Amino acid sequence: MVAAVADVAIPACAAVGIAFALWQWFLVSKVKVSAYAAPGNGHRNGGAIFRSEDDDEEDVGMGGDHDEEEEGDGVVAVARCAEIQSAISVGAKSFLFTQYKYLAGFTVVFAVVIFLFLGSVHRFSTESRPCQYTAGRTCKPALANAVFSTASFLLGAATSVVSGYLGMRIATYANARTTLEARHGVGRAFAAAFRAGAVMGFLLASLGLLVLYLTIKAFAVYYGDDWEGLYESVTGYGLGGSSMALFGRVGGGIYTKAADVGADLVGKVERNIPEDDPRNPAVIADNVGDNVGDIAGMGSDLFGSYAESTCAALFVASISSVGADHDFAAVCYPLLVSAAGLLVCLVTTLFATDLFKVKTVRGVAPALKMQLVVSTVLMTVAALVVTFAALPARFTLFDFGEVKQVRNWHLFLCVAIGLWAGLAIGFTTEYFTSNAYSPVRDVADSCRTGAATNVIFGLALGYKSVIVPVFAIAVSIYVGFTLASIYGIAIAALGMLSTVATGLAIDAYGPISDNAGGIAEMAGMSRRIRQRTDALDAAGNTTAAIGKGFAIGSAALVSLALFGAFVSRAGVADVNVLNPKVFVGLLVGAMLPYWFSAMTMKSVGSAALKMVEEVRRQFATIPGLMEGRATPDYARCVRISTDASLREMMPPGALVLFAPLIVGTFFGVRTLAGLLAGALVSGVQIAISASNSGGAWDNAKKYIEAGASDHAKALGPKGSDAHKAAVIGDTIGDPLKDTSGPSLNILIKLMAVESLVFAPFFAAHGGLIFN
Amino acid sequence: MVAAVADVAIPACAAVGIAFALWQWFLVSKVKVSAYAAPGNGHRNGGAIFRSEDDDEEDVGMGGDHDEEEEGDGVVAVARCAEIQSAISVGAKSFLFTQYKYLAGFTVVFAVVIFLFLGSVHRFSTESRPCQYTAGRTCKPALANAVFSTASFLLGAATSVVSGYLGMRIATYANARTTLEARHGVGRAFAAAFRAGAVMGFLLASLGLLVLYLTIKAFAVYYGDDWEGLYESVTGYGLGGSSMALFGRVGGGIYTKAADVGADLVGKVERNIPEDDPRNPAVIADNVGDNVGDIAGMGSDLFGSYAESTCAALFVASISSVGADHDFAAVCYPLLVSAAGLLVCLVTTLFATDLFKVKTVRGVAPALKMQLVVSTVLMTVAALVVTFAALPARFTLFDFGEVKQVRNWHLFLCVAIGLWAGLAIGFTTEYFTSNAYSPVRDVADSCRTGAATNVIFGLALGYKSVIVPVFAIAVSIYVGFTLASIYGIAIAALGMLSTVATGLAIDAYGPISDNAGGIAEMAGMSRRIRQRTDALDAAGNTTAAIGKGFAIGSAALVSLALFGAFVSRAGVADVNVLNPKVFVGLLVGAMLPYWFSAMTMKSVGSAALKMVEEVRRQFATIPGLMEGRATPDYARCVRISTDASLREMMPPGALVLFAPLIVGTFFGVRTLAGLLAGALVSGVQIAISASNSGGAWDNAKKYIEAGASDHAKALGPKGSDAHKAAVIGDTIGDPLKDTSGPSLNILIKLMAVESLVFAPFFAAHGGLIFN
Repeated sequence: MVAAVADVAIPACAAVGIAFALWQWFLVSKVKVSAYAAPGNGHRNGGAIFRSEDDDEEDVGMGGDHDEEEEGDGVVAVARCAEIQSAISVGAKSFLFTQYKYLAGFTVVFAVVIFLFLGSVHRFSTESRPCQYTAGRTCKPALANAVFSTASFLLGAATSVVSGYLGMRIATYANARTTLEARHGVGRAFAAAFRAGAVMGFLLASLGLLVLYLTIKAFAVYYGDDWEGLYESVTGYGLGGSSMALFGRVGGGIYTKAADVGADLVGKVERNIPEDDPRNPAVIADNVGDNVGDIAGMGSDLFGSYAESTCAALFVASISSVGADHDFAAVCYPLLVSAAGLLVCLVTTLFATDLFKVKTVRGVAPALKMQLVVSTVLMTVAALVVTFAALPARFTLFDFGEVKQVRNWHLFLCVAIGLWAGLAIGFTTEYFTSNAYSPVRDVADSCRTGAATNVIFGLALGYKSVIVPVFAIAVSIYVGFTLASIYGIAIAALGMLSTVATGLAIDAYGPISDNAGGIAEMAGMSRRIRQRTDALDAAGNTTAAIGKGFAIGSAALVSLALFGAFVSRAGVADVNVLNPKVFVGLLVGAMLPYWFSAMTMKSVGSAALKMVEEVRRQFATIPGLMEGRATPDYARCVRISTDASLREMMPPGALVLFAPLIVGTFFGVRTLAGLLAGALVSGVQIAISASNSGGAWDNAKKYIEAGASDHAKALGPKGSDAHKAAVIGDTIGDPLKDTSGPSLNILIKLMAVESLVFAPFFAAHGGLIFN
Repeated sequence: MVAAVADVAIPACAAVGIAFALWQWFLVSKVKVSAYAAPGNGHRNGGAIFRSEDDDEEDVGMGGDHDEEEEGDGVVAVARCAEIQSAISVGAKSFLFTQYKYLAGFTVVFAVVIFLFLGSVHRFSTESRPCQYTAGRTCKPALANAVFSTASFLLGAATSVVSGYLGMRIATYANARTTLEARHGVGRAFAAAFRAGAVMGFLLASLGLLVLYLTIKAFAVYYGDDWEGLYESVTGYGLGGSSMALFGRVGGGIYTKAADVGADLVGKVERNIPEDDPRNPAVIADNVGDNVGDIAGMGSDLFGSYAESTCAALFVASISSVGADHDFAAVCYPLLVSAAGLLVCLVTTLFATDLFKVKTVRGVAPALKMQLVVSTVLMTVAALVVTFAALPARFTLFDFGEVKQVRNWHLFLCVAIGLWAGLAIGFTTEYFTSNAYSPVRDVADSCRTGAATNVIFGLALGYKSVIVPVFAIAVSIYVGFTLASIYGIAIAALGMLSTVATGLAIDAYGPISDNAGGIAEMAGMSRRIRQRTDALDAAGNTTAAIGKGFAIGSAALVSLALFGAFVSRAGVADVNVLNPKVFVGLLVGAMLPYWFSAMTMKSVGSAALKMVEEVRRQFATIPGLMEGRATPDYARCVRISTDASLREMMPPGALVLFAPLIVGTFFGVRTLAGLLAGALVSGVQIAISASNSGGAWDNAKKYIEAGASDHAKALGPKGSDAHKAAVIGDTIGDPLKDTSGPSLNILIKLMAVESLVFAPFFAAHGGLIFN
């Protein structure tokens, strides 16, 4: 492929992705959050028609409540929806802005650190130097790399923040719209939530691709022929993306779970009022939390993975024979794969929103599952095309001093193995966290004997759910590595992430549905509406777990690719476990995820305790609150979550950011390499098990609440002892699945990309103690 | 040192250890389990005297119950104690015999596997062959190694079983005696329990040393000059010990926790009757479980660690210059260190039983803590003496083709670092699991907001408690490895285990006290007696956690030493993480502890569910049971635990035993090396955190129950909401701390020693797929 084609295809696909996102946004915006819905849209499926569409299936296990159908869903309720939506949106915006203010400070400081560390590699010399990999050529000075790495770090950070923010905006825009659409049937509510998810997915994937492409183009103006320096400094983009993601995930995770746990403990357990009851003072904070944690945090996280795997692949490609030959299209192969992925995801989205519309409650989960399958199948074909178009038939990789001949179809296999491993992880996660299968039902069943057995079974389930994903990752690594060394791993990671737009869409769909349910409850809408949003939400719990599965699977591959790039860049010949420096790093690295989780879990616990006290205080001191005659002080609860999350996100963030710097500087690159490997292999397990235990507990609770089978009915109803036990499990799972678990993939990625960026410094000056 | 001195010193120290154990047993036996206590012993501290000794401190927070002092502690109660003791003893014996029957079958099959695999290395040839390490010499045929490895495997298995059995016997002998001694004050009860623990500790350490020594001597008759073959085949001893330990720990762990969880869930939570209430049908099974799980299982476990670290050290020493020079005293240095350890522990024991007698409840924990400090300090001195006496001033190690000059004081430092790292682990564990410090109190405090926050805080505590032990292990590894390569690690492990007799004594003390409390409750003794045994038990929870900390710390070092020996023996030049075969092994290895834990946790959960149903059934169908007018059917509950544990111990056992065989045979030694390293670094973390979370929950509950401070009183009393939440945490912690956590150190050790034993086979025929 000639470079010009790549130069057209990449920005064009990104533009198409952005346009598609805006179109989906436009479709969502047609739902009016006002008492009188837009007639054209509202009537078509309204009245008798939507009933005939839904009643056959939805009434299973929910009979007898037709009378209250429209009761409470009228003008007042809609006005109330608008009001709640605005409160959530304002809360989320205000939190994110406060968080970004802190992050701006951090970013500036860290940018200075990057500049100083990398600039010091050759003592801030402005002289050119011989290239490291391509003999005989001259490369730009280390000082230039310091400047451009800092610049790309800032760009990555900015893109990450913008991605998270836009995701939050569309989510808080669509939540009440989903609630209102639920009046017209589950299918329309699903479409609203899913389209909003797609907006986020496409905006993020397209923006990430576009900014990275433009960065490369802009840097190339200075770097010219020096592709080594160019792609090395571009890796700062990944570091920027992931460091914002770290704080986004941790801060957002603490925010949302402090509010959620606090609200549940007093509301559901002590006061016996429903989830999201407007009398609960923490309810707005809880709903804000979904948007800042699960949406903005998740968005930043996957953006980070995407940016990092691309940077790792670009870096390795730049020091291969195609890099030496200056074959731009071939070097940009990772970008082309992502660009093709955007188009594939676009088609895939239409399957859910237009081709096979969801009509019943039971259609929700299969529709989401079909997204996974369709995108994987289509992407496999697309990857085949891109591979043969972009790559020369054979080229040479240089890794760890090893020379490896690679053929283009090897790279296709790498993309494919990543893709299908992702699907395997997705299906395994679904099996272990959906209440359609026996694992979650066993967990629900164990609630018969109380919370303790529920927790024991849930932990065991989480541990067990690790097996298949780890084998899937292991196979990807083995195949990728064998075929194309570290480049193969980076490409496998990109393969898994090539359908990230779809992955994010089905993932963001979850918290949007959760919010929609919350708004329905708070607005006092009928039970029927709430049942529909609950059904959406239950499927959303599973897709959220699947999203986390993808995030951790891709993070494992990404960080291994970054690890390989780091080892290459730092000039480490081997990472031998028999070397005590390496082994000590490995052991301590495997401990870091535990240290990190201890911090985040404790933070959620402490913040939740404060929230509980505040909620109890309000119930005790505000007269008429329990009877619904007074309004709680929502703002105080929002403030508790905000303060806690901003204060508590610092120590775990510092742990992750300082660990590689300290180890690299004082103990040298081998110990650092061991540390990265240890954190990777240990973090993967604990992240997957935490996410899946949490998802399973949540859905076991929902299974009992829904009472859709005889077994479930025997355990329920709400308020039964088994249900109370299930609520306890759900609450324990909250910080596991939404705070510590998903933050761990950022831990392993971020430490790896940071090591890569600082590799020249460590190689030059590292190891003050051990060397 | 001349060989003759070693030949005298080792069996002599072992004999002294055995004699000391028998003396302690004799002292325990002086307490008569009959209505009329032996007057000479009973009167001295009886009556008014023991009151003046106790009252000052014990009455804090327990005032006002003097009236019931002797009520219920009379003749009838003593007869009842005897009866209960006999029931527990019969149950434990019957379970162990059934278990041993299963294990005999396994052992025979596995012995055949060992013989066939090792015999096939040189196709069952009976011809001598050139030695692997000492050039120019002739070594015995591989077939001989197969025969002798099988024999030492059987000896190790037998010794392990005998150790576990003897431990169980003394524990079930001493439990009621401790209860009865509690009538005369907490000091005498402490002495009874502690002496019984010492019996177990000394018997086990002495037997292990003696049998190993005699095995070496016996094998030497055949092997003569071929020390390579001799010490290689001796490693089977470690494999035998650890494979029995695996089933002992897993089977015993499932037994005890199924009973414990089942008894608690119905008794404490549903029926609101005290722990160990005789009306609870599962109460005998629960007490039997303490003896078969925490005593027999723990004994086999530490015996395994001890045998393995010694075997690893001997093997490495045999292929060093002292081995080539046939310096028997120097090669036997590991045995001499252990022998010296026996004498040190003997003196240390006297500190608790004779020199500084425990007089009050508050004196219990410090007395146990002093054991740790005294044994460490004395052993440091003893190690200095042994090192300079036994080792030449300098000698040469050959590892991984590397030649390393070592001085004798290097080895002293290795012993010392292991010892002191053990102490650091012990103190950290105490800090995180004793209710005298803030971590457990914070967990107790979190019960105010229910079980969910309790569990979140407890998990976070467990994760956090990993940090210091991992650093302690890392420092030991670094120092050991740097000074004396793999030999240094093995010696550091031995250093940590050199005080194993004391470690086991304070560890076994816990379940004996627990049983004593159970017997007091069942025999209907006065509240005062129960309070004393509870105080002993609370300290026992902490020492049990400390014991587990030692077990896992030493297991980490041991398995690293075995790993190094395996790598040497299998002729692997490096274990490079950048090799995909190694990395895949590392990743999957890090997953195995999760897989294993999933199995064991689920087993406990399922067995507990069955137990709950049985207990509920008995309460529902046996008229008058709840009112104490009828006797429950204890035997059925014992049978449920027995059946569950025998059935459920197989799959996790198979996982551990087959994983190295499959990986080594099909994927080769590099992947196997990765697997071992991954399982090690991941297993350590999860084992430590599981033990400490469980210990903390247990003691948080005890903290609330004891109500010894204003804070604790505000949370209590028994039956309060906070207490109920604490009980849930305690129940969740049960399988974590007593089943899955402690089994994990066997997992990592056993896989390593198995790999070492099969190394010749893997090196010759392994890697069918990957190579």
